[in-house]
Amino acid sequence: MESAAPPCIILNVPQLAQNIGAVARVMANFGLADLRLVNPRDGWPQERAWAAASGAEWPLNAARVYDSVEAAIADLHLVYATTARPRELQLPVIGPREAAANLAHEVAEGRATGLLFGGERAGLETADIALCQAVVTLPIDPRFRSLNLAQAVAINAYEWRMTVESGAPPIFREGPPPAEAAAMLGLYEHFERELDDAGFFHPPEKKPSMMQNLRSALGRARFSDQEVRTFRGVVTALSKGRGRSLEKLARRKADGES
Amino acid sequence: MESAAPPCIILNVPQLAQNIGAVARVMANFGLADLRLVNPRDGWPQERAWAAASGAEWPLNAARVYDSVEAAIADLHLVYATTARPRELQLPVIGPREAAANLAHEVAEGRATGLLFGGERAGLETADIALCQAVVTLPIDPRFRSLNLAQAVAINAYEWRMTVESGAPPIFREGPPPAEAAAMLGLYEHFERELDDAGFFHPPEKKPSMMQNLRSALGRARFSDQEVRTFRGVVTALSKGRGRSLEKLARRKADGES
Repeated sequence: MESAAPPCIILNVPQLAQNIGAVARVMANFGLADLRLVNPRDGWPQERAWAAASGAEWPLNAARVYDSVEAAIADLHLVYATTARPRELQLPVIGPREAAANLAHEVAEGRATGLLFGGERAGLETADIALCQAVVTLPIDPRFRSLNLAQAVAINAYEWRMTVESGAPPIFREGPPPAEAAAMLGLYEHFERELDDAGFFHPPEKKPSMMQNLRSALGRARFSDQEVRTFRGVVTALSKGRGRSLEKLARRKADGES
Repeated sequence: MESAAPPCIILNVPQLAQNIGAVARVMANFGLADLRLVNPRDGWPQERAWAAASGAEWPLNAARVYDSVEAAIADLHLVYATTARPRELQLPVIGPREAAANLAHEVAEGRATGLLFGGERAGLETADIALCQAVVTLPIDPRFRSLNLAQAVAINAYEWRMTVESGAPPIFREGPPPAEAAAMLGLYEHFERELDDAGFFHPPEKKPSMMQNLRSALGRARFSDQEVRTFRGVVTALSKGRGRSLEKLARRKADGES
């Protein structure tokens, strides 16, 4: 099996062009090249990014811009959110070393992967973290948590390179590979649509957090393509099965009344 | 025996004040505090360093300035030079991980230690490297060697903290523990009942293997008790939502026929 490309770096709403350039530079230092930008605050391209990259121009030249995290990760099979521990989500929390080992394993199996980073001020929102399979936290001193964006990328990129250079033994995952993010997103939307129809979300203002919990719970399972299809069948059966029950009920009623 | 302070960071002829500030910031991130400057090009103190430190002022406030590397390292028992491999010197060459382990050992024995970094352009001269006990090199991609000074400090400081935090950060699972098997079995049975009702299992002889696949897929997610309750709610909503749809449908039919 052919290896996939090294993990891509996804920056969600990055603010400063020079930080984007510094990220490109450190990506080049450690052999990463695929840079993805979600709604960069000041637009794209920006000259200051190239100035800050000190010659590491290829990640910038090839950078792709997206209007949502969902779109930016659609083709990836494993995405980790690099952030402090989220309180609201039930996701595994791992360090950069374990993350690198897992990413290396996926890449060796030919699957595309990525690391998601929040913007300089706001970080990542829970809704974005919920799209990922785990949270990567750095062993930051709690007395001073303000880590520069490029530094966070640097440490993860360094661990990536340490892992692939050391030829660490791959972590074995039984069975077929996990589905692309796009397939999982399709499943979530299907769930959401049918649950909406069934009046599941009450009170309505709780719907976002309810959907988030469903996503992160199901996301942990890392369904294969076949399993995604199975669960779409389950949702369809449970909801469209209504028609069948309808008929039965109607027949029963008719029988009772006749 | 009492531990010594964490390693100091020695910058030899640093050029840009904002890089000194960025170094202070990342030192604070990973629990280092002792910053030593050898002949900073633009003098000291410089306001731009404080501006770049994002609040990590204590390493800057306490920074000491020296006029030679010899003076800066005089009180240290172990000093490593962070640089590319020197051709002329017969020094051990190690990575940041091994360096951190060695430094931690010295510190635990009560001995003062340090990491020496060269200036942005020139790096370290052979004479300075020769004052050190080993050379620390980063696993940089040979196609792009230009590493930012603060990034080099960041990776070494990160490895230091990983080491003193006793290796990896604790791998833990955020939030409540996984539910008991009984709760999961209850969820599976609930699924099975409703899917049976909805005519999902066809042909019927495939039902056992279909249920097995559902179980193993959901089992991997290791739901908490709360999540089990949520998914039972989902199943109920999707199936009992039938009643709701039934009414709607009946009403629509009645409206159409009237």
